[in-house]
Order: sequence, then C-alpha cells, then structure tokens
Amino acid sequence: MIDETHDPDLRCWVESAAGHAEYPVQNLPLGIFAPAGGAPRPGIAIGDRILDLQAVAALLPDAPARALGGATLNPLFALPAADRRALRRRVSALLSDEGQRDVVEPALHRAADCTLHLPAAIGDYTDFYVGIHHATNVGRQFRPDNPLLPNYKWVPIGYHGRASSVRPSGEPVIRPRGQRKPPQADAPDYGPTRRLDYELELGVWIGRGNALGEPIPIAEAGEHIVGLSLLNDWSARDFQAWEYQPLGPFLAKNFHTSVSPWVVTAEALAPFRIAQPPRPDGDPAPLPYLADAADQARGALAIELEVHLSTAAMRAQGTPPHRLSRGPASNMYWTIAQIVAHHASNGCDLRPGDLLGTGTISAPTDDGLGSLLEISRGGTAPIALPGGETRSFLEDGDELILSAHAAAEGYVPIGFGECRARIAPARG
Amino acid sequence: MIDETHDPDLRCWVESAAGHAEYPVQNLPLGIFAPAGGAPRPGIAIGDRILDLQAVAALLPDAPARALGGATLNPLFALPAADRRALRRRVSALLSDEGQRDVVEPALHRAADCTLHLPAAIGDYTDFYVGIHHATNVGRQFRPDNPLLPNYKWVPIGYHGRASSVRPSGEPVIRPRGQRKPPQADAPDYGPTRRLDYELELGVWIGRGNALGEPIPIAEAGEHIVGLSLLNDWSARDFQAWEYQPLGPFLAKNFHTSVSPWVVTAEALAPFRIAQPPRPDGDPAPLPYLADAADQARGALAIELEVHLSTAAMRAQGTPPHRLSRGPASNMYWTIAQIVAHHASNGCDLRPGDLLGTGTISAPTDDGLGSLLEISRGGTAPIALPGGETRSFLEDGDELILSAHAAAEGYVPIGFGECRARIAPARG
Repeated sequence: MIDETHDPDLRCWVESAAGHAEYPVQNLPLGIFAPAGGAPRPGIAIGDRILDLQAVAALLPDAPARALGGATLNPLFALPAADRRALRRRVSALLSDEGQRDVVEPALHRAADCTLHLPAAIGDYTDFYVGIHHATNVGRQFRPDNPLLPNYKWVPIGYHGRASSVRPSGEPVIRPRGQRKPPQADAPDYGPTRRLDYELELGVWIGRGNALGEPIPIAEAGEHIVGLSLLNDWSARDFQAWEYQPLGPFLAKNFHTSVSPWVVTAEALAPFRIAQPPRPDGDPAPLPYLADAADQARGALAIELEVHLSTAAMRAQGTPPHRLSRGPASNMYWTIAQIVAHHASNGCDLRPGDLLGTGTISAPTDDGLGSLLEISRGGTAPIALPGGETRSFLEDGDELILSAHAAAEGYVPIGFGECRARIAPARG
Repeated sequence: MIDETHDPDLRCWVESAAGHAEYPVQNLPLGIFAPAGGAPRPGIAIGDRILDLQAVAALLPDAPARALGGATLNPLFALPAADRRALRRRVSALLSDEGQRDVVEPALHRAADCTLHLPAAIGDYTDFYVGIHHATNVGRQFRPDNPLLPNYKWVPIGYHGRASSVRPSGEPVIRPRGQRKPPQADAPDYGPTRRLDYELELGVWIGRGNALGEPIPIAEAGEHIVGLSLLNDWSARDFQAWEYQPLGPFLAKNFHTSVSPWVVTAEALAPFRIAQPPRPDGDPAPLPYLADAADQARGALAIELEVHLSTAAMRAQGTPPHRLSRGPASNMYWTIAQIVAHHASNGCDLRPGDLLGTGTISAPTDDGLGSLLEISRGGTAPIALPGGETRSFLEDGDELILSAHAAAEGYVPIGFGECRARIAPARG
C-alpha cells in the first residue's frame, strides 16, 4: 500500500536524510542499536542518525510503543502488520514536521557512534534456493549431468540453517576447520577450509507467524513479512561437497551467517514491487497453494544487488573495493510470499523474528553472479583484482561487502545499508 | 562418575520410588511441569511424584537454586556440569533422608495431576544419522545402488531441523499436507501425506556450549551434555522422497517433532556406559578430532529402546499396544560425544538447551527396526496387527509410544518415561 510516507516531496528536518542513498525519510528501516555506553534498544535509521524509539515512545501509537521496550524487535514483529504501518506513519510525520523537531531531536544519535545488533532473537533460520541461475550454475558443478533437479520448478527448495551463528554485519568470520576431501584424495583430512565463499542473498524477517498445524494461505503471506535485510550465507565449498549427501549442507554453512542490521520494511518497499517475471514456456504452473494472481502481479522487487571485495593488500594500497557483481533481485524463481506459504504449507509454525534466506541470487550474466564458486567456475578460473592479486576463493583479510538499493520511477530510492565482514584466520 | 547417588541400596522415603520402572531415586530426571492450575516450573520425577525444585530452593546448592527460578531449564543447563552434579547429590540426599521428609514432602506433586512441558527453550535443533542400520536400510530404498554413501564412515552426518515445532510427549500430531509425487505420476499434487512415519531416536540436551569459532574438543564433549530424552522424528515419506534433493529433508520433517519431557541426566546414566562397539574390519578410524580412547571405552549406553503402536480400533477393543520393535541404543556408528564434537568442529556455537537427535536407531535384525519405512519395506510389506488390521504407514487415530530403559548388572535400572503421540486428521 502506497501512502503519504512514500511521497517523494516529503521533507525531513534531519538534514542528512535529504538525498541519503540508504536512509531517506521514505525508508525508515527498523533495527536494534546501542549508543556509546548504552544498552541495545529499538531504533530507526534516518540519514546519518538513528532515532531512539524508546525515547519517543510517548509520541508513538500505543501498541507499537508497548512492544518497543526491550532489546529485540520480536515483540514488535509479533504485532499485526497494521500496527507496524501505524508506527511508520507516525515516525514519518514526526520526522517531517518541523514543529516536532524540538521534542524528537534529542532522541537522535549519530549512527557512526552506535553499535548495531541483530534486529531480533532468531528462533529458526531457514535458507531457500530460489535463485534459479545460481541453482543451475552450482548444480552443474556438483551434478554435471543433472544441474536442475526435477523438483526445482515445483517445490521452493529450502533447508534449515543454524540460528545460533547468525551475526550482524561487521563481525569477523573465522575461517572454519572441517573435513576436506579433494576428489583425487583417498581420504578426508581435517583442517581450515581452502574454498571459503560468500553467497549473496536477501533475508526475510517473519512477523506474526502461524500456529502449529495451520498453514499460511499464499494470499495472506504478505501480512507475515516484516521486511528484508541483506544476508551472506558464508560457505566452505570443500566441506560442502564432501558432507552434503544425503541430508544437505551442515558444517559447510553453519559456522557463520551475516545479516545487515536494518530491516527494510515491507511498507517501505511497497513502491518497488513489480511483476514476477513470467515462467519460461514449458515450466509448470505453481500448484494452487502457491498460486496467487496478486502476488504474480507485484510479488517481485525492483532491487539492485551489489557485491564488492576488498583485500588486505588493496586496503594497504588505498585501492577502493572491487565490484564482483551487480544484478537485479528479480532473478528469483519463487516470490517471497511463495516461500513463506510453502514453509507453512505443512503446518510448520513460523514465529516472530524467524529469518528466511532467499538463497543466492545470481543473474544469468557473468557480471551478476552471487558467489565465487560461480564467478571462478568452481575455482578453475581465478579472477584478477586491482593491484595484481587473483582470487578463486576468499583469503584471510578479505572483506566482502553486500549492498542493495530499490528504485522506481517517481519514488525516492532507498537502500539496505551494508552487510560487511572480514575473514579472520583459522584459530589454533 | 559413579557415586553414592547410584547406590542400589539407597532407600527413598517416597514409597512409589522403590522398584519404580522409570523414576527410582537413582534416576532423578529433570523437567518442567505445571501442577493443576499452576505455572510451569522446574521439577524432578521421583516415583509417581514430581518434586517442585523452586519450593525447596532454600535446601539446594546456591548456583543451581538461583538457576531454577524460571519456566525453563536453560539457566540450569548453562551452569558448569559440576553444579548439576551438586544438585543431583543434594536432591538424592533429601529424598533418601527420612529426617528431611517433613520439609520436602509438601513440595511433591502427584505426577498424574501435572502437565509436562518442554524442558528447555530450544535455540537450535539438529538431527543426526548415526544409526548405521537405519542409514543402510533407508539408503537402499532411496538409492538402491548406493545405500551408504562414501562419507558415512568419516562424517557424523547431520542436518538442521526445526526448533519451533518440537513438542512434548502427548501433543497430537496433525497429519501434514504437502507435495506428493508417486514415482509413476507425471506431476506432484498437494494433499495429506499418505506415508506418515515415525523415527525412534534419542534426543541429546546441550549444556554450557561454546563460543562461536571455538570448537569443543572431543575429550570435553561430555561436559556439554546434560542428558537424554526420547525423540520421535515424525516423517512424511512421500514429501521426503520428492523434496529432499539436493538440500535435504525439510517439510517432510518440520511439521512436528516429539520429545519425552524428562531429561535423564548424563550423571544418572553413568552406570550404564559401555564400550562403543568396534568398527567392522576395513572401516576407517575416526579422524583425530573425533577420536578419544575414553569415549570409545565408555561412550555407548546400555539402553533398550522399544516402540509400541495402538490403533483406534485396538483401543476400542481393549487390545494393549502392539510392540513394533525392541533393540539396543548401541546400534549407533558414532557416539554422542562424537556428534557434539563434530557439530562444533567448525566453530558452530552450541547453546544451553539446544537439542540434538541421534537419528533413527535400528537394530540389524527385523525385530528392532526404528521406522515403518523399514518395517514395511517402503510400504510393500504391510504388518499385521492384533485384531486383523494392517499397517504400512500410520493412520489417523494411531498412537505411537516410544520407551527406553537403561540396565546394568549391580545397578537399579532406570527409565525414560514415554514419548507418546496420536495422529490427528489433516486440517481443512
């Protein structure tokens, strides 16, 4: 629903918000931040500031104000979507009404002085596999004869990930140890991964959720989606190739997952909804529990995703990060509503604060691949970096930066901020 | 460590504890119970009574007493194992000292009047696959040419399950809907599973756990294991066959997992530890991070597992439950310490209250198979039940009962209680 909060002419009295590439007043993403020396608390990013929602609770609608007293957003996520929309409208009004400035401005903190935390306590984290070009590219490497399995166009393939090891942007990723068995070796050994990779994904934050045994109809899925973050599904490809059959990836993935700390809400994304690209001729229609005309008409998002890499040598030389890929988020075979409806279609209960990853989003073109496994063709085609280095997989000291922006004619573009992390050497 | 709490001559002043098949004074399992009309709270089962630990907090050692104030056991599980051992010794003394009876007896509740809850808030639930006979039997059905994959004897295979849908014994299992595609069908459809199954497993409750990036050495794994429950990994085999490649089981499993509510502690199980059966000739030795001589010498458990089935017709006729299987828990290719060490070997952080399933434990003989998929040979060989019914998979109204007892010469046997649930029809 597009309303006055999306008005491109809306002016915010926070000066840095005007023309801000990430957090203009039309965005208002939700997060948990701690000011220097302070406790974690709910906030909203606006320009280069963060609004402390507890400090302005008296000015907010009752239900969200009551849900914002703690150190996570789970209670807010548990509210009906209408309450979150009411919060958005009120904050938009407070930040654009010069008459409120005296009251609200003391509740602003300089973002640069704050620490950002995970927005919610994650009950369960599930990772999907909706990037069809990624699934095809990777499938070809793991199963040359059979890249896309027969179920892919019927089932939004997903698997459970590890909630405990999800971390906000900025926390270093310790190179994991594990079982490595190169194809030519007779036996595996245990040591630091030699094929450390990233995966570019969107993260979906679940709102109210459902009771055990009660599926979420596809037409209602949107009410259960609070918003999106960027997600990096760090992967150890050598562990993965050896361990993943028959029950799927496990230690290859669960050592660390990074998310960007700001939840760009479904409401903020309303102007950027576009039609789901039509399925290629010959593909089956979604089964009825996954079919919704409204979702097909506006269930995809006009979001441009980018990945940059900065090595230790590049930083020492003052070389800016090198772009590894850029591509649209519309390269998803299933919509976000479809993965939510599918997840609950057997009665599995989703809870407020649950996190779903979309799976790696790759474009069909070489400049838009979402992992080094794809970019380097399984390590056989290292890429050249500025300064003369090459990379097949990530080295210690490498820093990965995911970013994303939504844009649409007639609206102010909004951004997701960054999902950034640096590789630390294996321990011990 | 075997101490005075295991003394077979220990007498308890709770009369029903003497000779109790499940909860003699040598057991003392931990759980969360609610007396009629009361709030959930920590307790210990003793005979046909439950001891309210909050009500006797003043008599308990300080650290556990402080950890027992809430409605979950997570704070207790987070303590060093030594604190749990101190709690056990004190409760054992209180229940066997006639001089304490006047003070303690008012804190006992009749178990039959209480509701049992999950013992902990489960952060993450992981399911392993250590039952080698099960893996071989099932592998043969899904991959006739390749029942046991090359990684099985190197990697304790596991995958992440769903924490939200774990429920205590007694909660009905709603038959899930999902995508079913029989081999002969051209396309899947969506409907109630036709191949609903159980899986007999042990559940492992995690104690203190580890920080992200810091593996748990195998020799220290025992300190992170609070104890065991029974676990039923309900499975929809038709969904599973269709969805599980390439990322593993998902909706085939996550609609419901049942656990028995009492945590039989590692301390209570000390007398029942036995040597891990030697690996067959030709099998590889475990890699060093999974090898521990002490664990090989006493890392398996002398536990007998049983499964019974009761149908609606059998109950109407007054027929007792029919035993589907009986077999020893030693049919595990990897020990519990090995799965804990493996899980954390890449730095994945385990947290207090996390739950690990062992995977289905089948014996090599036909009378000890841990799932109907195995017993009915994938549905091709229905079993006969008393009263003339047959079963290939579970029907609505069927009730499954898992039970287990540990026994060893010179010690009082202890039990796990039951993990019981009935199948309810699909909704809608």
